[in-house]
Amino acid sequence: MHGYTADKDAYLKRLKRIEGQVRGIARMVDEDVYCIDVLTQISAVTKALQAVSIGLMEDHLGHCVVDAARRDPAEGAAKVREASDAIARLVKS
Amino acid sequence: MHGYTADKDAYLKRLKRIEGQVRGIARMVDEDVYCIDVLTQISAVTKALQAVSIGLMEDHLGHCVVDAARRDPAEGAAKVREASDAIARLVKS
Amino acid sequence: MHGYTADKDAYLKRLKRIEGQVRGIARMVDEDVYCIDVLTQISAVTKALQAVSIGLMEDHLGHCVVDAARRDPAEGAAKVREASDAIARLVKS
Amino acid sequence: MHGYTADKDAYLKRLKRIEGQVRGIARMVDEDVYCIDVLTQISAVTKALQAVSIGLMEDHLGHCVVDAARRDPAEGAAKVREASDAIARLVKS
Repeated sequence: MHGYTADKDAYLKRLKRIEGQVRGIARMVDEDVYCIDVLTQISAVTKALQAVSIGLMEDHLGHCVVDAARRDPAEGAAKVREASDAIARLVKS
Repeated sequence: MHGYTADKDAYLKRLKRIEGQVRGIARMVDEDVYCIDVLTQISAVTKALQAVSIGLMEDHLGHCVVDAARRDPAEGAAKVREASDAIARLVKS
Repeated sequence: MHGYTADKDAYLKRLKRIEGQVRGIARMVDEDVYCIDVLTQISAVTKALQAVSIGLMEDHLGHCVVDAARRDPAEGAAKVREASDAIARLVKS
Repeated sequence: MHGYTADKDAYLKRLKRIEGQVRGIARMVDEDVYCIDVLTQISAVTKALQAVSIGLMEDHLGHCVVDAARRDPAEGAAKVREASDAIARLVKS
């Protein structure tokens, strides 16, 4: 059980759609679609992936991190540290 | 013929790999993998997509934009404008 | 008292340095330094600002959010929601 | 003479404003303003810096890169390479 478990089906549906969008970008490249249009589509997929990340992070903070902090302050601090590192990777990607 | 045409096969291979990575993320969610590990993998895919964008943009600048500018300054200026808007979308995504 | 209060002096020192870096960028523009060198310096300042944001967010999660969640689940959930919105702004900026 | 020279005064004014915004963030930290409000303000400054970068890049492409490509294809290719590296730094910051 993780933060995202309750929304699992919605996440799977979004990831399925993103997978289809990536396949669509490959098709655009294969059919020699204009560069800028390919780039616009990649930006859309990147945004969709980031939205999934932000949702997962919210679920993670609201469940895993908060639950750990309620059980034990040291465990909570470790979870906060770990979440911050993941936020840093998100911001830099 | 576009900027990326010469490297088309390499781009298709990279996009195929990214598609597989997105499918792998869906599998992680389906198998209840720990949130932070899912997030790390999404960051990796986002970085891979951005690397494709940066490559496409370099090809586009080096061919479409430069060729337009050599043919006609006004056409070159329009292409630069269009490329800048795409760079702005890249930076914000 | 906020999450960052214990590190206030360190944050003020970092922001002072960033302020000086922005002033340095204006000086570069004023002295007609080569565009790419100005851009490199702006990227460095953006990274420094993001590092401050990530530090502040870690302090915020570890104190304000965790404390609220320990006091009252509903208050904790509201803080998580608010933090997620701030993370979304960070990722998109 | 660089791509941005014609707009130099406008860039200096924008950078001056950004410098003031960074000073304002330090003041917020000094006065113990709520973490999320400090973060919102840092996101605004980061966006303003990125907008300056995108403007400088557009000027650079429209002048330095296009002029080099008109003078000499090899010089143009080197400028495109250099600009792409700067775009990659922008996207990752």
